[in-house]
Amino acid sequence: MKFVMPFLVAASMLFSTSLIAKPLNIDVSEFTLKNGMKVVVIPAHRAPVVTHMVWYKVGAADEENRKSGIAHFLEHLMFKGTKNRPAADFSKIISRNGGQDNAFTHQDYTGYYQSISKDRLEMVMELEADRMQNLIILDKDIATERDVVKEERRTRTDNKPDRLFNEQLYAALYTAHPYGIPIIGWMSEVAKLTRADAIAFYKKYYTPSNAILVVAGDVTPEQVLALAKKHYGVLKNSATPGPRVRTQEPKPIAARRVIMRDKRVASPYVTRMYLAPSFLRAKKSEAEALDLLADVLGGGTTSRLYKQFVIKDKIAVSVGVWYSGSNMDSGTFGIYAVPLPGGDLDALEKKLDAFIAQTLKTGITQKELDRSRRVMKAETVYTLDSQASLANVFGRALVGGRSVEHILSYPDRLDAVTLDDIKNAAAKVLKIERSVTGHLLNDKSK
Amino acid sequence: MKFVMPFLVAASMLFSTSLIAKPLNIDVSEFTLKNGMKVVVIPAHRAPVVTHMVWYKVGAADEENRKSGIAHFLEHLMFKGTKNRPAADFSKIISRNGGQDNAFTHQDYTGYYQSISKDRLEMVMELEADRMQNLIILDKDIATERDVVKEERRTRTDNKPDRLFNEQLYAALYTAHPYGIPIIGWMSEVAKLTRADAIAFYKKYYTPSNAILVVAGDVTPEQVLALAKKHYGVLKNSATPGPRVRTQEPKPIAARRVIMRDKRVASPYVTRMYLAPSFLRAKKSEAEALDLLADVLGGGTTSRLYKQFVIKDKIAVSVGVWYSGSNMDSGTFGIYAVPLPGGDLDALEKKLDAFIAQTLKTGITQKELDRSRRVMKAETVYTLDSQASLANVFGRALVGGRSVEHILSYPDRLDAVTLDDIKNAAAKVLKIERSVTGHLLNDKSK
Repeated sequence: MKFVMPFLVAASMLFSTSLIAKPLNIDVSEFTLKNGMKVVVIPAHRAPVVTHMVWYKVGAADEENRKSGIAHFLEHLMFKGTKNRPAADFSKIISRNGGQDNAFTHQDYTGYYQSISKDRLEMVMELEADRMQNLIILDKDIATERDVVKEERRTRTDNKPDRLFNEQLYAALYTAHPYGIPIIGWMSEVAKLTRADAIAFYKKYYTPSNAILVVAGDVTPEQVLALAKKHYGVLKNSATPGPRVRTQEPKPIAARRVIMRDKRVASPYVTRMYLAPSFLRAKKSEAEALDLLADVLGGGTTSRLYKQFVIKDKIAVSVGVWYSGSNMDSGTFGIYAVPLPGGDLDALEKKLDAFIAQTLKTGITQKELDRSRRVMKAETVYTLDSQASLANVFGRALVGGRSVEHILSYPDRLDAVTLDDIKNAAAKVLKIERSVTGHLLNDKSK
Repeated sequence: MKFVMPFLVAASMLFSTSLIAKPLNIDVSEFTLKNGMKVVVIPAHRAPVVTHMVWYKVGAADEENRKSGIAHFLEHLMFKGTKNRPAADFSKIISRNGGQDNAFTHQDYTGYYQSISKDRLEMVMELEADRMQNLIILDKDIATERDVVKEERRTRTDNKPDRLFNEQLYAALYTAHPYGIPIIGWMSEVAKLTRADAIAFYKKYYTPSNAILVVAGDVTPEQVLALAKKHYGVLKNSATPGPRVRTQEPKPIAARRVIMRDKRVASPYVTRMYLAPSFLRAKKSEAEALDLLADVLGGGTTSRLYKQFVIKDKIAVSVGVWYSGSNMDSGTFGIYAVPLPGGDLDALEKKLDAFIAQTLKTGITQKELDRSRRVMKAETVYTLDSQASLANVFGRALVGGRSVEHILSYPDRLDAVTLDDIKNAAAKVLKIERSVTGHLLNDKSK
């Protein structure tokens, strides 16, 4: 309900580098219930609250043809009644109990979470287990909720040129893989989603063996396991979703460009995204090297790009470089620059080209590498300081096919990255035929 | 079998303008059998031969997610045995009887045809009706035929940079509609097509109510109808395919570009395609206006573009403009120019931009319009001079949702086009945000 996890730079950056450091001594317990549902518990005793999340191994990239938006639409419908609570409003129950809740649909997963006082954990589990199997999807809710989603699309995408621009960039970057289709769906298809579509999707994917429970907070693994057995362990599987096979992106062979002009654009900018390996598919050290490279090149005001473009040459007011590797099948490595008002995007792009060519030629320095490593470890600690982040980071990794070990070893893997790894990863990824370059312009732009 | 109807300029041009002129006095008889199968007969008595075609209202654009290439793969399998002729090789039987046969898969349809002595028409019908319902798809044929298709893809696409480039252009032009997916399929998906996929596709779509029989040649409607009743009329429907709904292309909002560099490219060139209405979806006179406009601008050596770029300015060795409107959901209007050896594509594109801007500003002249009208009517006559073309033109139109009347009225509709129609159609279609611009380069290009 409420929001689609935006398939955007900002959201991707927030967690892509936010993996846990061993020195934190975070205990993670994993169990598998008899029905195949996975249970992950991360004790965190600072406050008497818990974060309860259920993650389904299904997202927008698993949708069928002509049904774009169904994963997100179903997420909305999950907040209606169940057989046991026909008139219930899920969020109201949580809120009456002093909690907060929300949900999000992503390309690879769909997640539901509640943050609540620890004595209400069982209540939340009962509610969440109930709607995993007993959801009622009423005809009358379909039209209403479809209108809500359509309005959401209008407000959050169609009325925002930068979001529309992003949709176009992803559509051009992925010629075949469904990551090129927006999570919220194409309007023409959202408008046609039916009750039958929602029920079929629910039955196929909302089943215990396709779900991961993550609880972080003031609890013990034993407590959570006992409650999970009681509420989730008794559920029967409604289907076997099978392996997650999406259309593979063919080998990229042509540089793509997207030039969008919209009079509502306040700040024109130039951006480029390269297809990059995801954490899940990357070879040894590749993803970590890209993480570090992105930080050295464009992570904040001490980065190379910022110092050169904003401070020294004064040709941009804002710049950035990111690596987003947490999607299952493919990641992106991106760069952007916002020129001074009235600045020419073609000229700025040429400067970016030169900047990238220089990077490929000379690589980065050991000092830069060491500094970024420190920064990223610190960021990891910072991100995991909140209970919600803990549950989020682990849930997200596990639902996307990575392991607890993979997360816990992140600091060590950062340590293992050499200057050669960085150079190799850059040479592999920063090829123009792997990329889409975008210019977002307004009616005053040249 | 044998070839995929290439989703390319050349093939599109061949028939998009090739509709029949009334003065030819071509009789077209239409019947519908009780099982819903349509029968179209076009007598043509010049030689004692017939062209027999069966068209199925299913093509690559109707494929399910992750099954790209299944329409074409099934087309291959249709040449294996049937329950009644387990070991038969369809093409060998035709060839032993002095005939020729082939088949083609398109985005919107799949067609099978035989050209043979008229006394063998019944034999051909029996064979074609047999494989419409009694096809045997053996496990042993799957792997073999999949390898054949994969090799076909390697030979005809992967080893041909211009074909690969075309794939990239269509993938960029269509952000959502399946016309952006190649007919032959993505290699990774072709490699995974199974016997079950082929059987499901066959059962769903190869059924009389989804088929159109077209017979042209030295026959009478009565003869063909009697034979059709006997051989096709007795078939039962295996499924109801339902309406043909594809993902709609959202309103185009961003100019796209594809820059592909491949050392195998002999002649670099620049091209641009605009999304244009199809004959089926166009408003009155729009498609005909685009047909005429394309001819005036770039149809041959007397066209504006040729005269300016090749003869006068000597900046190109070859140029062309085309309108392809025969696909059901969407057409394209395109332009290309091949520079002199070593010529700069950016400079050439700027000249094309200026050429298009000039066209939009001044339109074309009445003299040009009249001349092209005459040319296109003559081309229509020429195209329909062969029996195979007759069957092809009518079959193709009918299988794509157009009517016999729509075809017969083509010359009249050409006559009705005014200079204003041309101007309006140009203004509607020739917008940069509706387009993809491509540069195909080699390693010697700048």
